[in-house]
Parts: sequence; C-alpha cells; structure tokens
Amino acid sequence: MEPVVFQDHLRPFGQTCFGCGQDNAHGLRIRSHWEGEEGVCRWTPQPWHVGMPGVLNGGLIATLIDCHTACTATAAAYRAEGRPLGSEPALVYVTASLHVDYLKPTPSEGPLELRARVQELRGRKITVRCALLAGGQETARGEGVFVRVEAR
Amino acid sequence: MEPVVFQDHLRPFGQTCFGCGQDNAHGLRIRSHWEGEEGVCRWTPQPWHVGMPGVLNGGLIATLIDCHTACTATAAAYRAEGRPLGSEPALVYVTASLHVDYLKPTPSEGPLELRARVQELRGRKITVRCALLAGGQETARGEGVFVRVEAR
Repeated sequence: MEPVVFQDHLRPFGQTCFGCGQDNAHGLRIRSHWEGEEGVCRWTPQPWHVGMPGVLNGGLIATLIDCHTACTATAAAYRAEGRPLGSEPALVYVTASLHVDYLKPTPSEGPLELRARVQELRGRKITVRCALLAGGQETARGEGVFVRVEAR
Repeated sequence: MEPVVFQDHLRPFGQTCFGCGQDNAHGLRIRSHWEGEEGVCRWTPQPWHVGMPGVLNGGLIATLIDCHTACTATAAAYRAEGRPLGSEPALVYVTASLHVDYLKPTPSEGPLELRARVQELRGRKITVRCALLAGGQETARGEGVFVRVEAR
C-alpha cells in the first residue's frame, strides 16, 4: 500500500512551497510519510544543488530539514487530534527557529534520507529533530521549532 | 567605485554553489561586499522562492544567511591576514552549524538586505551573526559557525 504523503494533504505549503510544494516546478518537491513514529523523506539532489563540487549545498540541507520537520510537525498535530491529515479546520504551522549541525560533507549524488521525530508537542508549539543520512551515515542533524498560526 | 564582491574572488563556492555561485544558473547567485565592518548583500527573490504565497521560503532564508555569513567569514579571514581576497593559498571555510530565528514573515517580493558581522575569529573557527531585513525591518536573524578546511 502506498503511504500517505504529507504534502499531498497540507495546504498552503504542500502546493506552493519551494521546499515541499508539489506544484513548484523550480522547487525541491520533497515528499514525506510516516514510518511508525518517524517522518521519513527520501530525496535525490539535482546537479545544481551543490555547494562545492560533489557536496550538497548547506542551505539546501537546511531547507530539506526545515520543510520535512515542518510537515512532520503538522502531521503529528493532526495525529494528536485523531483527525485525518488535512481535514478542516486546517492546521498550519510556521517555523519559529531552525538549527542545523553539519557533521560531515553530504554527497550531492544522493539518494538521501531524512528521518524526523517529534520531541515535544505542547500547546501551539512543536519541536522536531531530524537526521539527514547519506548511504546510511548521518551527515547532518537539525531541530525545528514550529508554532501554530491561523489558517488563511 | 564598485565594491569588491566577495563571490567574484572566493573559490570553489563562488562559482558552483547553489546559494552564492555566480555561475550556477539555477541558484540564488547572491553577491556580498563590505560596508565598513559589515558584510552586506542585497537580493530580490524570484516568484518560486515562496513558502506560502507572498512569503519567502524559510529554507531559502537559511540558505541566504548561510552563504552570506560564510562569504563574510572568509572575507574576514583574508582581511585579518592582511591579504587580498582570494589570494593564494586560498582560504576555504565550511559551515559547522547554522541557527536561524524567524521573527516575522519575510515578504517574497523583495528587495531584501542581509547585514552580517563577525562575532569571533579564533584559530580555525569564525562565528558570524546576520540580520535579514525587508523594507528596513528585521524579519529573521541567524548565526553561522564556520571552520577552516584545506583547499582542494
């Protein structure tokens, strides 16, 4: 059975966003899903996504972690309320802060895997930690803090 | 007099990098220069650089801050050694960590300004703080920590 892809159900980011919008032809178009308690994303860079040759750009690593943890946070909020992903009223979270530690160079040829886990879900605030893996090795890790805002 | 643009002199990032490579046709192609003690970059987003409509994507904000602070760090290292930017042997710095606080939505129409300042330059490590401004208002701030590596 195909997993439920978060971005197919989360508006407005799931459509427009440079990182996770499925309709953004210039964007990264990441797709995330649950594997148990972990939000998982597999993604392969394009040749122009480098920093120095052969190494994935650090800002795009931050973009992957931001969007994947944001979508995981939002999916976790629906799950916590026992509601189907994307059901009305829509839950919308924005990034309050993002921290990334770059552990070693991330090869730009991919494929890459992101694995995210909710650390804390309290009130309107959700904290999610995420590992970026290349060939099973962790090359970067990050933490995003997200805050619920009114849907527009 | 035209200011010296950091990216015109810093290899390998200044050519290839998604954020600051001047030859990366798909990239952000930011250009940074000194204004006194501050590294400054002015940049206008493209329509596809959004998160939600009208708002700049948070990952790209991280990318702007990462690349602009990295180039400012490297320029500061040359300056500290009293050497022309990009002179041999090349100084190359990579990001060890990046933190971004998102203070308010950053409008996606631009123009935007980044202003960065070295906080600490000690041994092989440089810490740079940066403000992102839209219409003179600070919408995000970040801190990058950079470590010198051997040039390849």
